[in-house]
Amino acid sequence: MPEHRSRAKSHANFTANSIKSTRKAALALGFCVLGGLTVFFHSEITRAIATLMNEALPKNPPTPKDNATTPAKVKLGAQLYFDPRLSKDGTVSCNSCHNVMSNGTDGLRTSAGVGAKRGGRNSPTVWNAAFMSVQFWDGRAASLEEQAKGPLVNPIEMAMADHKAVVKRIEEIPGYRDSFKQVFDGSDPITIDNVAKAIAAFERTLATPNSAFDRYRKGDKKALSTQQIRGYEVAQTVGCFSCHSGPNFAGPVLPEGTGFFQQFPKFENNEYVKKYDFKKDTGRYEVTKKSEDKHFWRVPTWRNIAVTAPYFHNGSVETLEEAVRVMSRTQLDKELSTREVEDIVAFMQSLTGEFPRIEMPRLPDTSGFSLVISSVK
Amino acid sequence: MPEHRSRAKSHANFTANSIKSTRKAALALGFCVLGGLTVFFHSEITRAIATLMNEALPKNPPTPKDNATTPAKVKLGAQLYFDPRLSKDGTVSCNSCHNVMSNGTDGLRTSAGVGAKRGGRNSPTVWNAAFMSVQFWDGRAASLEEQAKGPLVNPIEMAMADHKAVVKRIEEIPGYRDSFKQVFDGSDPITIDNVAKAIAAFERTLATPNSAFDRYRKGDKKALSTQQIRGYEVAQTVGCFSCHSGPNFAGPVLPEGTGFFQQFPKFENNEYVKKYDFKKDTGRYEVTKKSEDKHFWRVPTWRNIAVTAPYFHNGSVETLEEAVRVMSRTQLDKELSTREVEDIVAFMQSLTGEFPRIEMPRLPDTSGFSLVISSVK
Repeated sequence: MPEHRSRAKSHANFTANSIKSTRKAALALGFCVLGGLTVFFHSEITRAIATLMNEALPKNPPTPKDNATTPAKVKLGAQLYFDPRLSKDGTVSCNSCHNVMSNGTDGLRTSAGVGAKRGGRNSPTVWNAAFMSVQFWDGRAASLEEQAKGPLVNPIEMAMADHKAVVKRIEEIPGYRDSFKQVFDGSDPITIDNVAKAIAAFERTLATPNSAFDRYRKGDKKALSTQQIRGYEVAQTVGCFSCHSGPNFAGPVLPEGTGFFQQFPKFENNEYVKKYDFKKDTGRYEVTKKSEDKHFWRVPTWRNIAVTAPYFHNGSVETLEEAVRVMSRTQLDKELSTREVEDIVAFMQSLTGEFPRIEMPRLPDTSGFSLVISSVK
Repeated sequence: MPEHRSRAKSHANFTANSIKSTRKAALALGFCVLGGLTVFFHSEITRAIATLMNEALPKNPPTPKDNATTPAKVKLGAQLYFDPRLSKDGTVSCNSCHNVMSNGTDGLRTSAGVGAKRGGRNSPTVWNAAFMSVQFWDGRAASLEEQAKGPLVNPIEMAMADHKAVVKRIEEIPGYRDSFKQVFDGSDPITIDNVAKAIAAFERTLATPNSAFDRYRKGDKKALSTQQIRGYEVAQTVGCFSCHSGPNFAGPVLPEGTGFFQQFPKFENNEYVKKYDFKKDTGRYEVTKKSEDKHFWRVPTWRNIAVTAPYFHNGSVETLEEAVRVMSRTQLDKELSTREVEDIVAFMQSLTGEFPRIEMPRLPDTSGFSLVISSVK
């Protein structure tokens, strides 16, 4: 089939599959959660879920009522996000592990915290994190605000003694004192909640719209190649979108704090579970201690997936091809052909978005002394 | 004396001291090097040297003929400067220790390299480094280009195996391949020399003009406070500007590669030499192995000195006040009053410049794999 006809046909499929009723989708989701996903392949219900993904990335992410995204707050949040003085020894900032200048992560299996300490989980990308309904691999934070407070006091990440120590550091920097007064109400605006709010406000600006997929969805038929459209169809047919649905390809749009979790690995009759040590970490169980949460994980996004290697919660899988092979076996019990894998990967590449231009923040000074050294004595 | 009269008087002093003849200055410098500095206090020759400092920061730094500063090269250099993939384990970039978002250094005694390894010397600021005639504390690099190659392969800094390994990493990133082709000539433009040239070109844009002192020099009589003018006069009288001369307050303007070195400590009849362990590191001697270079150091800049604590080659002195007290004893054998110290510090604060707005670089991706992980296997 000539390329343009193939494109036209695939586009017709996209459109035909579009189902407006969110009721139907919600029903489908209910089934999923209750009964597992595998029985629904090729069914109408799966198509209903799959079409949830058929959305371009919205312009603005959900925003809590008590934390409006204002320019002054975003500017302050960017400063805090890039400021290594918020770590015990002054060497690690939020950006160290979630690098805004690149893919929103660090390209490592697991990140390096203060003293080069390594954790057990791969750093999720900050790009489009605002479109996730929960944060962290195990979904233990219900919001970006809640998430932001974690690494600051995690002993293998930024390792501050406690949130009070974070506040104390910030209070010693005149520029921050002024900015917090300007951005937040109250006589004592430097609080850990406001620190988190400012960081979260900055993070809500970190979206990557206008991927090739988004342009295609908006009508640019040439935005996807024949191979990418084929990849989309393979992914749909084998069942990837049962979970990787929604505008962020990470599950349906749910109220903030309502996580979309799936068991991983689901099938263990394959070489990968042992090879990549997938079962060592019990995932959401480590938060809830409920046996039904063992090996459940927040469904990760496909957006920018091509540029956020390595893969999985432990960063054990090095390439996107291998990640696709692993998922088809562990989640769907299917063996994909090399061509199918390549096609899905090609489609995934269409989900790399446009990264906005951002001005570098200037971190406010202390005059005549180094804050970190005066703090760690 | 009312403040405005005091200001006017001090300004008259500034002007009266201006001596245009560079000959006189060169003569003075010759005396310095030959005979030591202390004998010249209050003499006409010292005044001639001191007035060398009476210059605003020039608009553009010296630039080698074979490395013109072009926008495309600066953009590429910024990417390389911020790219942690140029370190062995992907955790350290040039910016980790020379933070462009803040004071051009890291606020630590000594910097943390890969694996949190610590060196023995304090990280010099990258701001206005282009105005220094040599680089590193011991002046072992004759240019920014030469300097840039060092940390990449220093085992306690970025720790790449060799320059070939750096080139290999960069070659694997399609965006860099394109940029190097665009910026540099030749069929094989990714070379370590070109890497260094791009980084140096970016660094030449990192100047902080328009400090209060610079504005004062250009005629804004209100730019300095009475205390700051008094501090300038104290610094001049006691002899600070014998060494901290020139537009960068780091010695006279010399051809690139001609370092301006001084012995430190010069006087040991004080508590500080032992307290701060100043003699452990022999400075330039470690480069030249000539006994006359023992404890000689490149004279550091006063620009942005108020915001680049901690101080000295080993970062052992925490505050600017203490740094001034130390220097007056170790270099000039003088005990300053508290008020004199405070006045000099106030003047030093007038040397914090304007930091330009810079767009964050976007680091080019690799698709489907992580470069660092594929490299360190």
